[in-house]
Amino acid sequence: MTGSTPAPFTADDYRARMERAARSAAEAGLAGLLVAPGPDLVWLTGYAPTAITERLTLLVLAPGRAPVLVVPTLEAPDAAKAAGAPALNLRDWTDGKDPYAATAALLDSTGRFGVSDNAWAMHLLGLQRTLPGTTYAALTEALPMLRAVKDAAELELMAAAGAAADATFEEIRKVPFGGRKESEVGADLAGLLRRFGHSQVDFTIVASGPNGADPHHEVGERVIEQGDMVVLDFGGLKDGYGSDTSRTVHVGEPTDEERRVHDLVRAAQEAGFRAVRPGVACQEVDRAARAVIVDAGYGEYFIHRTGHGIGVTTHEPPYMIEGEQQSLVPGMCFSVEPGVYLPGRFGVRIEDIVTVTEDGGRRLNNTDRELVVVD
Amino acid sequence: MTGSTPAPFTADDYRARMERAARSAAEAGLAGLLVAPGPDLVWLTGYAPTAITERLTLLVLAPGRAPVLVVPTLEAPDAAKAAGAPALNLRDWTDGKDPYAATAALLDSTGRFGVSDNAWAMHLLGLQRTLPGTTYAALTEALPMLRAVKDAAELELMAAAGAAADATFEEIRKVPFGGRKESEVGADLAGLLRRFGHSQVDFTIVASGPNGADPHHEVGERVIEQGDMVVLDFGGLKDGYGSDTSRTVHVGEPTDEERRVHDLVRAAQEAGFRAVRPGVACQEVDRAARAVIVDAGYGEYFIHRTGHGIGVTTHEPPYMIEGEQQSLVPGMCFSVEPGVYLPGRFGVRIEDIVTVTEDGGRRLNNTDRELVVVD
Repeated sequence: MTGSTPAPFTADDYRARMERAARSAAEAGLAGLLVAPGPDLVWLTGYAPTAITERLTLLVLAPGRAPVLVVPTLEAPDAAKAAGAPALNLRDWTDGKDPYAATAALLDSTGRFGVSDNAWAMHLLGLQRTLPGTTYAALTEALPMLRAVKDAAELELMAAAGAAADATFEEIRKVPFGGRKESEVGADLAGLLRRFGHSQVDFTIVASGPNGADPHHEVGERVIEQGDMVVLDFGGLKDGYGSDTSRTVHVGEPTDEERRVHDLVRAAQEAGFRAVRPGVACQEVDRAARAVIVDAGYGEYFIHRTGHGIGVTTHEPPYMIEGEQQSLVPGMCFSVEPGVYLPGRFGVRIEDIVTVTEDGGRRLNNTDRELVVVD
Repeated sequence: MTGSTPAPFTADDYRARMERAARSAAEAGLAGLLVAPGPDLVWLTGYAPTAITERLTLLVLAPGRAPVLVVPTLEAPDAAKAAGAPALNLRDWTDGKDPYAATAALLDSTGRFGVSDNAWAMHLLGLQRTLPGTTYAALTEALPMLRAVKDAAELELMAAAGAAADATFEEIRKVPFGGRKESEVGADLAGLLRRFGHSQVDFTIVASGPNGADPHHEVGERVIEQGDMVVLDFGGLKDGYGSDTSRTVHVGEPTDEERRVHDLVRAAQEAGFRAVRPGVACQEVDRAARAVIVDAGYGEYFIHRTGHGIGVTTHEPPYMIEGEQQSLVPGMCFSVEPGVYLPGRFGVRIEDIVTVTEDGGRRLNNTDRELVVVD
């Protein structure tokens, strides 16, 4: 992710997000937030450095103080062009100077700070060394819901990204699968996502036959055969917001067992979706989907959590996983994607992005969840 | 950077690198090295996860113990395919389990560890919490020269990457500049780098006229005009090793002042290059180049360090910067790239990758350093 996000937000939008984040930090007992380049920084300021290097760039948000972006002098002109820059004070530092000392001057020397999950360990160690009285918590642990609840403008962008992914599925089901390599169908998926408005393609999984039993298989040189189940899982960013959907298709007529397993995953996905409503814990979504698969005797073949949040990244909190007691809140967006993986044979996964509404859930992916037969 | 590096190294090569790294760690008083996905992991194991996520992947190297790669269960099949995997023990962990506990079991609970610069802060905090008796140092600070000295096979790949960048310059000087957008020339550069064998293009800077005065300007929509100085700075990875070269060209005949500034930068670059020999401190390379520019009265317009290391990344230690007392060692590779930046007017930068030999330096970029006039 480079350059400013194309999402249609203004400096006022970013100012409001930064104020909200600083308030949340105070409520969580933090002296401030330290935000490194990546999705948090994009969301809070619209700024994404061209490259993430060893040179420290760090947004300092402290309750009651104006936001400061510590930035290498060389990159300050770029940062000044970000949509959120008018809401920021830039504090630049030059090669050879100590960026941690410059940052420390902005911090309470005995405070506890939330720091971006993906901030470099090198930078955290620099701050810990410069201010030994400070303590730190990963932002996802301290404020897991910072970006989780989407406002109306964000939901519109999420829905548009979902619709683009759905349009991609409607086209990909028409292409020939049998006799082509997974990598060729994957290239088709990437082209379609871009054609339907994605600026960034994050993944295009085409997992045929036995490859489908590896949930993280992307694409390979395997030639797809008649009789294969094929897991398709694809997504990326459109106008700065994410898509992610999975459907499992079959090349030619499926066997009874293949239909049965697909029906089972579909029922599990439906059960997960139906569990979504405000106030329910995330783990209940996982439990609802998992129960269907366990009850059918396939529990040991559902080897991952049921879902993950999505927003300015395609993979973020909240997680739909056993042990996650975070309550669902209207505006949250996440995947519901149970699967069954039969080693050496085939896999099935069905995935929609779901957003929490006032009284339930709404799917942002709406293509056919029946087993689609392809050529 | 995704997938395994295409560099032609075997499991034995990776085993030798890991053993050497573990020995260096012991000599530096470290109980071990903790290596996150990124260039260190690629260099030590040949493994690059498809995506870097919040799920912990960490190579644990401890003197006298077999290397262990802690890896999410979902990604273990991929990791097992890496070229270095036969030299590793994989220890996988499943969603919902605590990866820090799994890692802690491999560590001396009171040891000091080197940790990859770019390891996620979240993971470092997880280890600090799980093993409060441990301490950490960023790998670049603890073992800055881990990857800095290239062996013969690596130098061959570095030279080939440099030759491909030179071939790119020989072609780009023939294309029309005047009347075209920077972004168009940038696209030409990227295409040429790929044509000459690069698998990854990291940057294609085309900074014309006043844009040249911003050393980090990449490409913009500015139309290049007759009479512009244009800074070109481009590079990426070819067969897993980096290129990075800069030349400044002029559209039509330059003025006397433009020639004078270009000659000055060329003399500074030559002086930096001539300072390179074993045993000399990195900062002496910076001082030699800078003195030429300062003596000519342009010191305030040379606003960055003189160079950076290069290898499996295009940007790494050692740095040619005031204060860096690391001695040069045969096999090190780094840029020598002084520049002069006149705000609102133009910039000049000339950059070669240089490798340290037994008795001096050898340039891996060898195109014309005179001011080239383009159309």
